[in-house]
Amino acid sequence: MTFTLADLAQRFQGMVRGNPDVKIERVAALDVAGPRDISYFTDRKYLAMLAGTMAGAVILTEADASGFSGSALIVDNPHLCFARVAALLHAAPAFRPGAHATAVVDSGARVAVTAYIGPHAVIESGVTIADGAYIGPGCVVGANAVVGAHSRLMAQVFVGERCVIGENCLFQPGVVIGADGFGYARDGERWEKVPQLGRVVIGNEVEVGANTTIDRGSLNDTVIGDGVKLDNLIQIAHNVRIGENTAIAACAGIAGSTTVGKRCTIGGQAGIMGHIEITDDVHVTACSFVSGSITKPGVYSASLRAEPAEKWRRNAARLHHLDEMARRLRELEAKLK
Amino acid sequence: MTFTLADLAQRFQGMVRGNPDVKIERVAALDVAGPRDISYFTDRKYLAMLAGTMAGAVILTEADASGFSGSALIVDNPHLCFARVAALLHAAPAFRPGAHATAVVDSGARVAVTAYIGPHAVIESGVTIADGAYIGPGCVVGANAVVGAHSRLMAQVFVGERCVIGENCLFQPGVVIGADGFGYARDGERWEKVPQLGRVVIGNEVEVGANTTIDRGSLNDTVIGDGVKLDNLIQIAHNVRIGENTAIAACAGIAGSTTVGKRCTIGGQAGIMGHIEITDDVHVTACSFVSGSITKPGVYSASLRAEPAEKWRRNAARLHHLDEMARRLRELEAKLK
Amino acid sequence: MTFTLADLAQRFQGMVRGNPDVKIERVAALDVAGPRDISYFTDRKYLAMLAGTMAGAVILTEADASGFSGSALIVDNPHLCFARVAALLHAAPAFRPGAHATAVVDSGARVAVTAYIGPHAVIESGVTIADGAYIGPGCVVGANAVVGAHSRLMAQVFVGERCVIGENCLFQPGVVIGADGFGYARDGERWEKVPQLGRVVIGNEVEVGANTTIDRGSLNDTVIGDGVKLDNLIQIAHNVRIGENTAIAACAGIAGSTTVGKRCTIGGQAGIMGHIEITDDVHVTACSFVSGSITKPGVYSASLRAEPAEKWRRNAARLHHLDEMARRLRELEAKLK
Repeated sequence: MTFTLADLAQRFQGMVRGNPDVKIERVAALDVAGPRDISYFTDRKYLAMLAGTMAGAVILTEADASGFSGSALIVDNPHLCFARVAALLHAAPAFRPGAHATAVVDSGARVAVTAYIGPHAVIESGVTIADGAYIGPGCVVGANAVVGAHSRLMAQVFVGERCVIGENCLFQPGVVIGADGFGYARDGERWEKVPQLGRVVIGNEVEVGANTTIDRGSLNDTVIGDGVKLDNLIQIAHNVRIGENTAIAACAGIAGSTTVGKRCTIGGQAGIMGHIEITDDVHVTACSFVSGSITKPGVYSASLRAEPAEKWRRNAARLHHLDEMARRLRELEAKLK
Repeated sequence: MTFTLADLAQRFQGMVRGNPDVKIERVAALDVAGPRDISYFTDRKYLAMLAGTMAGAVILTEADASGFSGSALIVDNPHLCFARVAALLHAAPAFRPGAHATAVVDSGARVAVTAYIGPHAVIESGVTIADGAYIGPGCVVGANAVVGAHSRLMAQVFVGERCVIGENCLFQPGVVIGADGFGYARDGERWEKVPQLGRVVIGNEVEVGANTTIDRGSLNDTVIGDGVKLDNLIQIAHNVRIGENTAIAACAGIAGSTTVGKRCTIGGQAGIMGHIEITDDVHVTACSFVSGSITKPGVYSASLRAEPAEKWRRNAARLHHLDEMARRLRELEAKLK
Repeated sequence: MTFTLADLAQRFQGMVRGNPDVKIERVAALDVAGPRDISYFTDRKYLAMLAGTMAGAVILTEADASGFSGSALIVDNPHLCFARVAALLHAAPAFRPGAHATAVVDSGARVAVTAYIGPHAVIESGVTIADGAYIGPGCVVGANAVVGAHSRLMAQVFVGERCVIGENCLFQPGVVIGADGFGYARDGERWEKVPQLGRVVIGNEVEVGANTTIDRGSLNDTVIGDGVKLDNLIQIAHNVRIGENTAIAACAGIAGSTTVGKRCTIGGQAGIMGHIEITDDVHVTACSFVSGSITKPGVYSASLRAEPAEKWRRNAARLHHLDEMARRLRELEAKLK
């Protein structure tokens, strides 16, 4: 589809500077864009790229536009506008509703006529697949689970029995929703499994990255709020609750029964202890370990940055005697008094 | 199914206090339980919840029962009793033996008549699926592998050729058993693959969490002992050996050829170096890195807790000069002598 | 297949010491090898094993051979030679070309007659599957993707639309190539998805471990160079570029838009920040976090080793006051001047 810059400006409440009739077909990065492409600019680190771009138009702020001679779409939030332009120009391909011949759909499942069930998908009894939902190839939706309207399970996703997924969600391949939580009772030396009877309940507009796992609750539910975004290979344990619009980067892990507030960001490979509460608007940096509740919004960190190994080895070795060092320092202070 | 409290007491060697005829249908948490539910109590932090519970009965110890006015099932280990009551009241639904019409079962596979093979599962030649085993939708069991009696592969599980899984095991969706280990020989700048020829051999009553991977051995086998419990997204590399009843939390990784003893617990995101030995009864806390063998039972740790980023940044910066600080401290001590 | 030691020596440019006519059928480790097995020796830690081995022959260097009385295949790089002997003796079983009856292959896909498509695999429109490629059971290859000659997707692998995989690659089960990158624009409190429009482009002889995920680029591509080896459960984010012959161990994560050079090694559970550049020949040790660009080859580290928890707790507590300690040390120094 082709739009003029004026079309885009109208549709996304922007202002045109330059040629309103330039025809836009695609989005592209500043350095590879051509005359039918629209790009965006937010980071002054790339000013040289902006100056040299061949893009038909660039989305930027009024302030940044002043130094740019090409055609521009001026908005307050260029990244957001770019996201929407990209979604318009590169819409996910429409699918033809219905179930593929190789899908196994239980006769007791309720599948909307506008939904799609892909090859080799399995839809068990009592499942609800709502309007416009997309169940990709190889997905398994367990008994009595619900997939909300316009939600998409891309491929090879597992949704366990009774779990509930809201509307407009997007789950990447390999996601596992509603596996058993890790719950065992001690029986002398051995572990006895505690049946995991809760569900996973996921809100609207939630995205879940490839091979991420969200376990069902043990008795109560695991709950993921509206607008939560989870990256790849994340572990969400049983009975965790994640507040609205929190975003978590890849390889992070949230242990059981922990509550994470709204609008938080959790960095990649961060670890969050079980049975704690993290309030709203907390930001945990990558590779940090949160071992206790956090009651005040802010940025929290505990990561160490790699340095040349020889230097690191000497520093780390001292760390393992830091308590002794601290005591020696105190003794010196006492002597000097 | 419904049981009286007296039924449960007899079945699980408990003692009834209160009404032995109260009818129990389900388990539930103290705070949401109703008159047909049984709950349990172990943590005095929740005394107020116990006092206010509407549960038909509560499982607790004699000591805790003294302050409770409701009907009680008194046992030595309430958590364990609860696990067993839950398993009784909420038994996994029985399956109808046989292979689904869409399953691909090689004519050379031996599948017990009491076993189940789900939709789109693939059972290759020479495989043995023993009595009462459950192979869920989309699972792939490679040539000559063995799945022991009453073991369950929930969905989309992969078991590589020749691997052996014991009895009464439970594998969550996305588990990969017997992928190639990460073995390469240097050939100048490039890496030459070393064929991975060992198996994975898994004992009885082993549970493996969603998307966890256990690689086959390079020459000898990777071995997982009876009663081992693995959480989600764990990596077990080639030739690792894990002792009986060890439990490992999510996102942990055990590098190649390491031996972990019996009855160990490994915390979430912990990393264990390759080619080391960890003795029995070792407990590694979450997010800790074990870089050498551990010969004495006990608790081991190396994690740092997140603190406000500004404060952390100052402390971490000093850490990168700790060796120098230690030398300056020594000089001061020398001067003062 | 059986080879004499002389056959192997000729084929792999080695020298025989001992009996050239000894018949070799398999490879095995020194301690379990029998008279028809060939083993290898590189680590003097295992000298006793070498002395006691029952192997029909051992691959080792000239220097190590002098102390060994059995039959030997003498080469410069025993591990490499062993890898090749193992590949010869234990070749992956040949497959019969063609598509399994249950595979769903779009009529617009180009599948070489020498390629194999396994049970329940899905090949979408416009896909190219080249000569001798192997697409295992349950794999999904999205529209217009390319799988190069002799590449193997073992099972349940996902390759997203338009992604390109080179020749002679090997992907273990559960790998996800070309899921959406984690890209969102802020819209007040909520996140707006930024469409992920790039591809994943993978070179030749690349291996990818079980359940590893490589995201598609946001605008430009994510690029994996020839000869790269990735272990299990690794996250490669959008727009990452990894240079030739780099090897990355399990559970590592590379954040978005980072470039890793050639011939690097990244240890298990290491984390690499986004938007940085790591030059060629950099080695990051296990569990280390790289938070900034690295411009000089060498070994980099930031991991701490677990110690008994009580001792660690005291040291870690001091670390959280290290900045204050450093200031007190400076004050003492000032006083003493």
